[in-house]
Formats: sequence, C-alpha cells, structure tokens
Amino acid sequence: MHIAGDLLIGGEVVRGANGFIKAVNPANGETLEPAFGGATLDQLEQACALAWQAFDGYRETSLEARAAFLERIAQNILELGDELIERCISESGLPRARIEGERGRTVGQLRMFAGVVRNGDFLEARIDPAQPERKPLPRVDLRLRNVAVGPVAVFGASNFPLAFSVAGGDTASALAAGCPVIVKAHSAHPGTSALVGRAVQMAVRDCAMPEGTFSLLFDSGRQIGQGLVSDHRIKAVGFTGSRGGGTALMKLAAARKEPIPVYAEMSSINPVLLFSHALAQRADAIGKAFAASLTMGAGQFCTNPGLVLAVDGPGLDAFIASARTALSELPAATMLTPGIHKAYDSAVQHFAEHAEVTTVARGKSGEQYQGQAALFSTTAAAFRKHLELQEEIFGASSLVVRCPNQEAMLGIVEALEGQLTATLHIDDADHADARRLLPALERRVGRILVNGFGTGVEVGHAMVHGGPYPATADGRSTSVGSMAIMRFLRPVSYQDMPDALLPDALKTNNPLGLTRRLDGTLKVAG
Amino acid sequence: MHIAGDLLIGGEVVRGANGFIKAVNPANGETLEPAFGGATLDQLEQACALAWQAFDGYRETSLEARAAFLERIAQNILELGDELIERCISESGLPRARIEGERGRTVGQLRMFAGVVRNGDFLEARIDPAQPERKPLPRVDLRLRNVAVGPVAVFGASNFPLAFSVAGGDTASALAAGCPVIVKAHSAHPGTSALVGRAVQMAVRDCAMPEGTFSLLFDSGRQIGQGLVSDHRIKAVGFTGSRGGGTALMKLAAARKEPIPVYAEMSSINPVLLFSHALAQRADAIGKAFAASLTMGAGQFCTNPGLVLAVDGPGLDAFIASARTALSELPAATMLTPGIHKAYDSAVQHFAEHAEVTTVARGKSGEQYQGQAALFSTTAAAFRKHLELQEEIFGASSLVVRCPNQEAMLGIVEALEGQLTATLHIDDADHADARRLLPALERRVGRILVNGFGTGVEVGHAMVHGGPYPATADGRSTSVGSMAIMRFLRPVSYQDMPDALLPDALKTNNPLGLTRRLDGTLKVAG
Repeated sequence: MHIAGDLLIGGEVVRGANGFIKAVNPANGETLEPAFGGATLDQLEQACALAWQAFDGYRETSLEARAAFLERIAQNILELGDELIERCISESGLPRARIEGERGRTVGQLRMFAGVVRNGDFLEARIDPAQPERKPLPRVDLRLRNVAVGPVAVFGASNFPLAFSVAGGDTASALAAGCPVIVKAHSAHPGTSALVGRAVQMAVRDCAMPEGTFSLLFDSGRQIGQGLVSDHRIKAVGFTGSRGGGTALMKLAAARKEPIPVYAEMSSINPVLLFSHALAQRADAIGKAFAASLTMGAGQFCTNPGLVLAVDGPGLDAFIASARTALSELPAATMLTPGIHKAYDSAVQHFAEHAEVTTVARGKSGEQYQGQAALFSTTAAAFRKHLELQEEIFGASSLVVRCPNQEAMLGIVEALEGQLTATLHIDDADHADARRLLPALERRVGRILVNGFGTGVEVGHAMVHGGPYPATADGRSTSVGSMAIMRFLRPVSYQDMPDALLPDALKTNNPLGLTRRLDGTLKVAG
Repeated sequence: MHIAGDLLIGGEVVRGANGFIKAVNPANGETLEPAFGGATLDQLEQACALAWQAFDGYRETSLEARAAFLERIAQNILELGDELIERCISESGLPRARIEGERGRTVGQLRMFAGVVRNGDFLEARIDPAQPERKPLPRVDLRLRNVAVGPVAVFGASNFPLAFSVAGGDTASALAAGCPVIVKAHSAHPGTSALVGRAVQMAVRDCAMPEGTFSLLFDSGRQIGQGLVSDHRIKAVGFTGSRGGGTALMKLAAARKEPIPVYAEMSSINPVLLFSHALAQRADAIGKAFAASLTMGAGQFCTNPGLVLAVDGPGLDAFIASARTALSELPAATMLTPGIHKAYDSAVQHFAEHAEVTTVARGKSGEQYQGQAALFSTTAAAFRKHLELQEEIFGASSLVVRCPNQEAMLGIVEALEGQLTATLHIDDADHADARRLLPALERRVGRILVNGFGTGVEVGHAMVHGGPYPATADGRSTSVGSMAIMRFLRPVSYQDMPDALLPDALKTNNPLGLTRRLDGTLKVAG
C-alpha cells in the first residue's frame, strides 16, 4: 500500500495542511519519506464532528456486528503483510521478531475484544423487577446497562508502534465499548500509523460502520493533541507515554467545562524484591534472568525492572556479579528515537555522577542511537533521602538498593510512588517475609509477580496493567487485558420503561441471551 | 444518649478545640445546644493516622465479619430510638414521617451492603490459569481481585441528614468496600451526626474492627474539609452538595501530589418531558403528580423536577392549570437551614424578575424559613439563549419551557448539561416520539424514568444515581444502590503466586465460594 502521508478523517484521505513530520530510522539516523502533513484545527474539527455524528449509531450496533468489525480490523492488519513489518522496523529500530510478535499481540487483542463484545458481560445488565404489592410503597421496575461514554482520543505510544498505537489496546477497548476513536499518531512511527490507520478505515467501510467511527491525525506540534483533549465531543482519553505528557493531559482534561477521564499510563520503576532464601539458592539464575528482562526491547518497556531491593549480603553480591557478567555480554540496542536515546544517556550519566550511587555494571557500548545497559547500586538511606533516584529512566537502566534488613526494605516500599508491577523472588522459606510485604505492595502496584519479571505483559482477562498514580492517571483501571473495556463505559438505569423502548440488553425476554443480575443475583445465560 | 458536642477520633471521644458550631432549628429559628467543637489540624492528623493504621487490617477482615459490622451499625442506629428522630427533626425541619422513612432507608442501605459483601461478587475474582505448554511462550498464571482503595473522606449532605450523612450511602459503600471512613459532619445537623457517629463508633468496638475504621469530625470553618481531601492518606472522596462545593473539592483533589477520585453529587434540574398523547389523555393527573413531586421534602431533593419540556398547546396549558391549582393548595414547608431558605428565595426572585420568564403558579406563602413553591414558564428560544435558566434552584421551583415542536425539545435536550434523571410522560402512541429523544437522554443522564418522577430514589441493584458532569463529578459511577461499592475499589493482579500467598478470594480451591471468571467465563458459585 502506498504511504502518501495523509490524514484519515472518517472515510476521507486528506492532506494535512499544518506543517509536516518525518520519521527517522534510529538504526542509521536516516530520515524516512514521505512527509506526513500535520492536521489543522479545521481538520481536527472535522474529525470530532464526524466522531460525534457516528457515536449514537456506532454504540448501538449489534454485538455481533461490532465483534465482526474488530475481527476485520485484525484481518486487514495481517493483510498488510511484510510492508507493515518493514516500515515498523525502520521507524522503531526494533528487531523483526519483536515486531512480528507485537503484530500478533495487536491482532490477538482485537480478537479478544471481539469475544468480549459477543459475550456481552461488559454491559453489566441488571434487573430489579417491580413489586407492585410492596408496602408501604410499591417498588418500581429498574433496569441498568452500561453505555459507551462517547468519542475517545487515543495517543499512540512510542514504545509499542503496533500494540499501543493506532489499533492497539486503547483503540481496541474503546471501539469494543462502542466509542468512536480519534487517534493522534506518535510522530516516531507515522508510516506504521498510516498503514494501520488505513486497515481500520477500510474495516469501517467493509463493515458499514458509521463514517466517523475512526479518524487518524498527525500533529506537527502539540496543538492537535491538546485540541483533541479539550474538544467538548471527546469524552475520554487513552495515553501511554511520559509522566510530563500524561500529567499535562490530565490538567487539560480537568480544566474543561466538562472534565473527562484520562487513562494515562506514565511512569513506573517496577521494584524487584529479592529474598534471602531465593538468593541463597539461585542468585546466579536470577541475575541472568534479570539482565535479560532489563535489556529486552532496549529496556523500553513500562514494566522494565528499574529498581532492585534486597538485604545486603553475599546473596545480593552474587546476584550483582551474575547480572554484571550477563550485562557485559549483552550488545547495545537501538533505541526508538534519537531523542529517547539522548534522554537515556543523559539520565544514566546523572546516576553515574551521583555522589551516593555506584556504577556496578554496564552493557556493551554501541553505535549512534544504541542504548548501553547500566546497573547502579546505592544504600537504603541514600535512596530514601534522594527522591530523584525514584524517577524512571526510560531504557535499560536499573538501580540496586542494598538494604540493611527486611524492615528497611519495607520502609522503601512504603516510600515508593504508585507502580505498575512489583516482583518477588522467593523460595518457600521466604513466604513469611514476603507475606509481611504484600499489603504494602497491594496498596502501591497493579500487578504482583512471583519468580518472573514484569516485562512480557500477558493479554488476558485477569491482567492489570495499571496501578496508583503516577504509574497511571487512574488506578481503578487497566490498559491491557479484557477489563480495559470498562474504562469507556458508564451505567444508565431505566425506570418503568415499556419493553418496546428498552434496549435489547434489558428486554424481559433477554433477546441477546445475556448473563444478567436479577435482584442482585447473577443469572448466567444459556 | 447525651450529646456533648465532641469529635469521635477512632475509639476516643474528644473535645474539638478549634471554635464551635451550633445547629439552628429552622422551624422556629432557635439555636440548639450544645456547641460542637470544631476539629483542629492536629485532630485531623490523628484521625488520618488512625485511618491509615486501620486500613490494612480492615480491608482484609473476612466478608462475614465486615457484613456483620455493617448490620451492627444498622442495629445501633435503630437502638438510638426516638432521640435520633427528634434531634433530626429539630435540626432539619423535616417532618417525622420523612425522618422515620429516611432512617429506614439508611438502615436498609447498610443491610443491603452487608448482603453485597457476603455475596462477594464485588471482588470480581478472575483466574486465567497457566498454560505451560503454550507455544511460542508458556502462559503465566494470572489472578485478579478488587482491593479497597484506602481511607475515604465522606462529607455529610444537608438534605439527607441520615441517608447521605454519617452512616449514609457513601459511608456504607466505602465501609463495604473495605475502606476506613472519616466523616466531615454537615454543620446543619451536628447532633444527628453525633448520635449516628456514636452508633458507628460502638459498632467498631462491638465488632472488634481496627480502631481507626471510623472517625467523625466537626469543622468550624473549611479547613478540616479541605485538609481531609488534601491529606495523602485519603484515597477517595464522597460528597453530596452544591456545585460550588463539589467543584472546589475536585480542584483540591486534582492538585494533590497523588490526585484522587472525587465522587461529588452536585447539581441537576432533572428534565421532565411531556408528550402529546399523554398530555391529551391525562394532563390533569400529570400536573397533580408533578406538583406533589416538586414540593416533596420542600423540593430539597437532588432529583427534584426543575425543568418541564413540552410542545406548546392545549395539553400543556391543561398540565399547567392542573399544577397551578395543586400548588396553590400546597402549604409552604420549612427548609433545611436559614441559609438554604434565603438562597432559595433569592433565586426564585431572580426568575420572577427575569424579562423572559413568566410566573405561572406559586404555592402558599409560609413562615420565617418556609419555602413557597414556584412554577415559571419561558420559551424554547429564551431557554437556549439564557444559560442561567439551566441553573439548579435548590427547593420547590420549576420552569416550564414551551417548545414550538419536537425538534425544539430535542434541541433543548442536546443543550442541557449532565443530569441525574430525565422523565418521560408518554402513552403508547408517544413511543415513536420518545424513541427519537432517548439517545440524547442516554448521553446526558444517569436514570431515565417513564410515567413517574425522579424523587424517591429506590435503593437497589439496578439504580444509577449519577450522571455526566455536573450532575456528578464522575459519571462512571452511582452514589445510590449496590453498584456504589465499585467506586472504592481497584483491581490488583497476581502472577504465578503460590496458593499459600494468594488472598482467599483467588486460592485454587475457592474457599470463599465466590463466583469467579475463569479464562473469561463466569463460573457461578454453588
């Protein structure tokens, strides 16, 4: 498919008339053609108007039609074939196996949400039947279902050019909920965005969905992203990116005449807690696995293990020695953009020069935009004192905190900001120690792992990729997994409404065959 | 029980040392003894520290123990007997039957949440079992449950001194979720608050809950309310009150280092839509029922019908004539506080003097702090032009908008802010007209009623007492009904965690007998 550099506004392919952006291949620093025209405010207005027009029709499409639409998007993405893979590799610097895997995840997510839509449980249908004989007052008939919140703005993420970008998790869950989507493409991978955008646009046409169900905009500055979040027709925002970017969107959304929810996934250092018996038994293996997780994808994962906590001693020394050896053999890896590489180098440099931080290992050095892994250590007291040591370094850098005892580890956990994940490395004999830390971890993180690493986020029904602020803007939600659909829904109840006017989900004869809650008790369909 | 005017900080009864408040009996203007000492910032600190200490223990109490605690609160409230009823009457000006009914609702809510806790569905337990043989990568074991968000600040409401105050809906749902609660009592009914607060405090002791599970503070100014919302240990806020008050709390919560959710129920004019066939058949009956709903509780309900929309004509004239007659026979009613009465009178005066508004009916005039019902009319064009006519008047005042046709009605609905309720009065022959308005209503309101009135909010499983901003701060939620518990929960997932460390809700042998979602499919318990 020819990549012309155009916006997709509903069914139209339109040249953006406000400056342009071009991608850079971070593997060699070359600028990639074509130029992608940035949207004007008028073009943003058109996309928002179309999304609003599409909303009532799209949200009431049948569950089957909406599921088939999501599956069609998946199919259309696959049919882009190798052109998508190659463009994505050249725009991201990520290796082919990763990009192919990410395409699999993207397609898998869309299909999972198709299943979630067909199942219909997300509607949370509830019926409290009338009780005309109740004393002192008769009881009314009340029925409840979830409805889509409205058009959603999705910001593509730099680090998942497929799985959290144009047709990624935010888009898939919003479309599944019944919300039209306007994507602001990430400037690092406009060609990938254009290809996937066309796949979605064609699925809209193929499945006869309302035209404004999907639009894709490029932004040559910040005005389109800001304008989207501020537009009165946009009712929620999905974002994965930096803490600065996410909090700016939160402020914009809170300042609107009608404030709206922002689901921003922003910042996390994902503490890894090593316990004494596990270290005594297998410090070497944990060190190797840690180094592999730290450097996976050049460390550019939200769930990258950026902090290691353990009681100081020979076990921790053995872990560090193992990680040092493993890292020293690992090649540098191309980072997503020259800007991300520069920020990484600068942050690592700051750590290296910090008076209370020791550099304990580096990966191999590399070429122009390749990130060199780094492992640092510090003391518990220094970590508590220097809050800047809690800040995320986006890339393959991590900090080991040597704790004098378990109480100091707990103290550090209690002082941590909200996190996406925490990981425990334990043996059976560590259970008692681990149990004492679990309450503090539950209060601070979205996912607690045992004897694994947070990188590699399974897309399932029991996944929480979320966590208290600043891991995300809204710790009551997840951006990965089937529960992500709940972000884009709100409940509406219907009182004494005649069956003829009720939505199908709530009609008495249950034409959709839904599982519904009757007087508070779930009645499973079928 | 003696009302001494003290704060309840955990298990202690403490004199507030920062000024004082006294209630006024709005029926006669007399000041009521005793003086209630306002909390100092030190006393606020003590309450927050205790709540935080209590959190981990309280949130992990067994479902049965927590349910029994909620039931004990209900029992303790009933055991306050007539003293509670009489103090509440003298502090609110509301009649005995209403207060007794409200006590019934309050006790019923607590018992409903006890049932919700025992049922356990609110934990939303999910299990995606491991698939060690999966290719290319084995699948991890993932399990998810909801956990309590943390200590919750609850602001008592003026208009529900029992059902939305110290042990009202917000408190009951937060306690049910596993969150300690600190209540900032409403200054209009401190004695009622003190009595109910003691009932809760004694239930904490009776049921051996952690001491800081509940505290009750009086505020002689605004610093305690503001300090509560800003305290880092408070993780969510429940509020029912004015738009000014609610938006101020939203701003405070958003400006925190860790922003937190605010569930503020604020402002709604609850449009009532009258359709032509219904008017032709029974304008007189609808007018009478409307007048009764408008004046119930001196009009001091969040769901009061403050706006009537209908196509102009003889049917609407007949409705107005009927409402006029009914209102003219209805006595004025004592309002909750002198301040609320003054604000009501002033707002009604503004409407009466508005160049494009006609006064079509008044209720009987009354004594000092009694509100005199008012019914106004205007045109669709004037309503669209003058945004101030959309503002809520708290009290028994409503505005009829004469629309030239159905399209003008739809236009007004599309221009409305978010609302708690909308009501349709329809006959079968009106269904087609009603159907065209439903999508716009669904986008704007939390509950749509047919041939009834929004006043009288059923506490059930399918109730939504919520709606888009500014009806509430967060349209994804309800403050009445069993779904209210979801406001105070967030999901946590557990990956590859040994059964011994998993919470009971997620252990493989399902010791709690919960309904759980297995690989995406609900498996109902028992």
